[in-house]
Amino acid sequence: MQEIKAYKGDIFHFLDDADAENCNSKNQYIENGMIVVEDGLIKSIGTSNEIIKTLPKGTEVIDYRDSLIVPGFVDAHIHSVQTESIASYGEQLLDWLNGYIFPTEKKFKDRNYAEKATRFFVNELLRNGTTTAAIFPSVHAVSTEVLFEIGFEYNMRLIAGKTMMNRNSVEADFDTPETAYSESRQLIEKWHGKRRLSYAVTPRFAPTSSEEQLNVASLLKKEFPGVYVQTHLAENKKEIEYVKKLFPWSKSYLEVYDHFDLLGDRSLFAHSIHLTDNEYQRIRETNSVVVHCPTSNLFLGSGLFDFKKANEFNLRMALGSDVGAGTSFSMLRTADEAYKVAALQGEKLPPLKSYYLMTLGGAKALSLSDKIGNFSIGKEADFNIINLNCTPLLEYRIRTAKTLEEKLFALMILGDDRAISETYVLGKSMKGFTKA
Amino acid sequence: MQEIKAYKGDIFHFLDDADAENCNSKNQYIENGMIVVEDGLIKSIGTSNEIIKTLPKGTEVIDYRDSLIVPGFVDAHIHSVQTESIASYGEQLLDWLNGYIFPTEKKFKDRNYAEKATRFFVNELLRNGTTTAAIFPSVHAVSTEVLFEIGFEYNMRLIAGKTMMNRNSVEADFDTPETAYSESRQLIEKWHGKRRLSYAVTPRFAPTSSEEQLNVASLLKKEFPGVYVQTHLAENKKEIEYVKKLFPWSKSYLEVYDHFDLLGDRSLFAHSIHLTDNEYQRIRETNSVVVHCPTSNLFLGSGLFDFKKANEFNLRMALGSDVGAGTSFSMLRTADEAYKVAALQGEKLPPLKSYYLMTLGGAKALSLSDKIGNFSIGKEADFNIINLNCTPLLEYRIRTAKTLEEKLFALMILGDDRAISETYVLGKSMKGFTKA
Repeated sequence: MQEIKAYKGDIFHFLDDADAENCNSKNQYIENGMIVVEDGLIKSIGTSNEIIKTLPKGTEVIDYRDSLIVPGFVDAHIHSVQTESIASYGEQLLDWLNGYIFPTEKKFKDRNYAEKATRFFVNELLRNGTTTAAIFPSVHAVSTEVLFEIGFEYNMRLIAGKTMMNRNSVEADFDTPETAYSESRQLIEKWHGKRRLSYAVTPRFAPTSSEEQLNVASLLKKEFPGVYVQTHLAENKKEIEYVKKLFPWSKSYLEVYDHFDLLGDRSLFAHSIHLTDNEYQRIRETNSVVVHCPTSNLFLGSGLFDFKKANEFNLRMALGSDVGAGTSFSMLRTADEAYKVAALQGEKLPPLKSYYLMTLGGAKALSLSDKIGNFSIGKEADFNIINLNCTPLLEYRIRTAKTLEEKLFALMILGDDRAISETYVLGKSMKGFTKA
Repeated sequence: MQEIKAYKGDIFHFLDDADAENCNSKNQYIENGMIVVEDGLIKSIGTSNEIIKTLPKGTEVIDYRDSLIVPGFVDAHIHSVQTESIASYGEQLLDWLNGYIFPTEKKFKDRNYAEKATRFFVNELLRNGTTTAAIFPSVHAVSTEVLFEIGFEYNMRLIAGKTMMNRNSVEADFDTPETAYSESRQLIEKWHGKRRLSYAVTPRFAPTSSEEQLNVASLLKKEFPGVYVQTHLAENKKEIEYVKKLFPWSKSYLEVYDHFDLLGDRSLFAHSIHLTDNEYQRIRETNSVVVHCPTSNLFLGSGLFDFKKANEFNLRMALGSDVGAGTSFSMLRTADEAYKVAALQGEKLPPLKSYYLMTLGGAKALSLSDKIGNFSIGKEADFNIINLNCTPLLEYRIRTAKTLEEKLFALMILGDDRAISETYVLGKSMKGFTKA
């Protein structure tokens, strides 16, 4: 028992038994609340008046009165090696990869470059209140090594894995099935389960991996049962045609991954836009996870994620920023555009559901809800201090909001990185790290 | 001749003969440039080295080195009476109007409330770099009176007119055809052409005006040839059905307005999403203007503006924020989402075209390009000082941008109000007004 601190503010989080359907009621809002953090874990939570009586004498109380305290945000799909290519003009997925992304990712073979760029990337996550992310580095093992080093240093709960890709671009660096296996294996052995880090076997997507390489991914998944799998699925119509051509034996895009036994409750499929009912069904059966990345899907003109189908098939789901195709690191901006993607299809994405997806729902999708996602006793203390008055417009709008729900909705439509006044990781303020 | 000042920075603007097609070449970028402003008008423009030699002794030079100087932004569709209802949850157009907007607009019958809310609104325009806007106040004459008073005080080039609406809501305040006529007439006589203010005859949209009232609008347009007409057109599919029911004699939505002779080169039709070829054709024939409002169209799930058709029919076009259905006062955010609306349809919106639409193109659409929109000698000196390093991410992205076009694109995808470090209206800094 080393350190105990108390944080005072208006607390909002979802209860352990919340899900996408009941999150409107299964949440807790404590005005003038307090959380107590001991050794980086939540020790207690309640009203400030109650909790303060229980504090050991001399406990430091940090007063965030008038701020909202919420769990750290979960970004379930992002690339640590594309920040430099964010906002690159004019192409859809395949041309955008060849024209902008692969050349940028090449730079990450250089450790020096990778260290600088990755530190900037992680600082941007934190500046935007994201404390947990599932991340694609580049094909170069060193890009993953560096990301894990920084995640270790910051004590963040990160999921990542070296991108596996061995074919189909003249612009990219490649691995081989053999090096993909040996490098991934080394990284898993060194980093998986170290502090708060987890490994994800990360074949980029079907078009850039040969069958041999997908076999290797499958093998790693079997050999290391705790690791994740992450990849892209059915983002763009031309991509789907391409997959059909490359894997003529497969009845669908998903079946390629399924054939290599890459589905499962720790498998994350980014985008999952253009799917058949059979594919939705199979995702459900295998407890796999879909990650909706709205700013990316709009920016690349990929298409509209089908919330109705995702609900109908009761899919496990999370939100992703997908920077660098995504246009913002902010999960608030991401939720704003998720709302718009739903609206365009005549669907409603309720504000509380968005916050659920950004916090506990994201944690559940990443099989991490025993550790993060809300303020249950014993969980890891990742949290954000939210300033609802961070811009004149948001302040103006919040003033007339009658309910918490209305305030949270205004925050996600009008808010951005400015709303995150401070971010804590495992009970430690990250302010020193993220100052520009 | 009272005052002369020089402003130093990197200058970017479009040349007088630029249009939507040739704006990629018909523009001027002057690194280390200088504009000279005399009595609120552009007196000269060139490289700093050239211009500095021509300055009268003692001329104050304001140094915005490393900043970009661009013309003030034009927002061709926005409501001054909906700020409080921005980011209101869950409805499409007609329900959103009745549920949120009409009740909010009712408050503007009170001069005291209207003054405070309208000043906040105008300050938000300026904080976002918008120096010219076409604005809908509420049905209450006083809401327009107050807006013109503030526009007069700030010396802004604004177009506005009291909203005319006399039927079809239980939530709204109404005028009548008679009061719509008399109040509009009074406002025109008092304000139209005063300083930089112009009047727009403003029937809200077909569903809330009776034929008698549309006749009155028509009459005003004839009696005062210099005034504008602004309204909404074909935003939402249910709205279109409703118009069909209300005006069974009309073959299309546009024909309702056409029947009352409301089309013309000073007529602004916000949204114009769901149109037939006949309607596009008629807009073109009459030199009318369509205003694309992407953040609004996405937020309300109204649909996707058809850039291809707008280009095919060579329509006069501008961008609008459409706050309060729009989700940002920033024309940069508006351009970001316009890009995404185009991308979703497989279309490209080139960055320079976006900036053209935000500046000279907007001015042309509002028939104001003899006065504003670029830095031609003699034009009114409305301009923005842009800080390309306003956020860590934008700074990072700009550092690797190779061309001006790439920088401008990053600015519109990643930038917001923070990028506007200062706004000048008729040669005067508005900093004092807009400080929070």
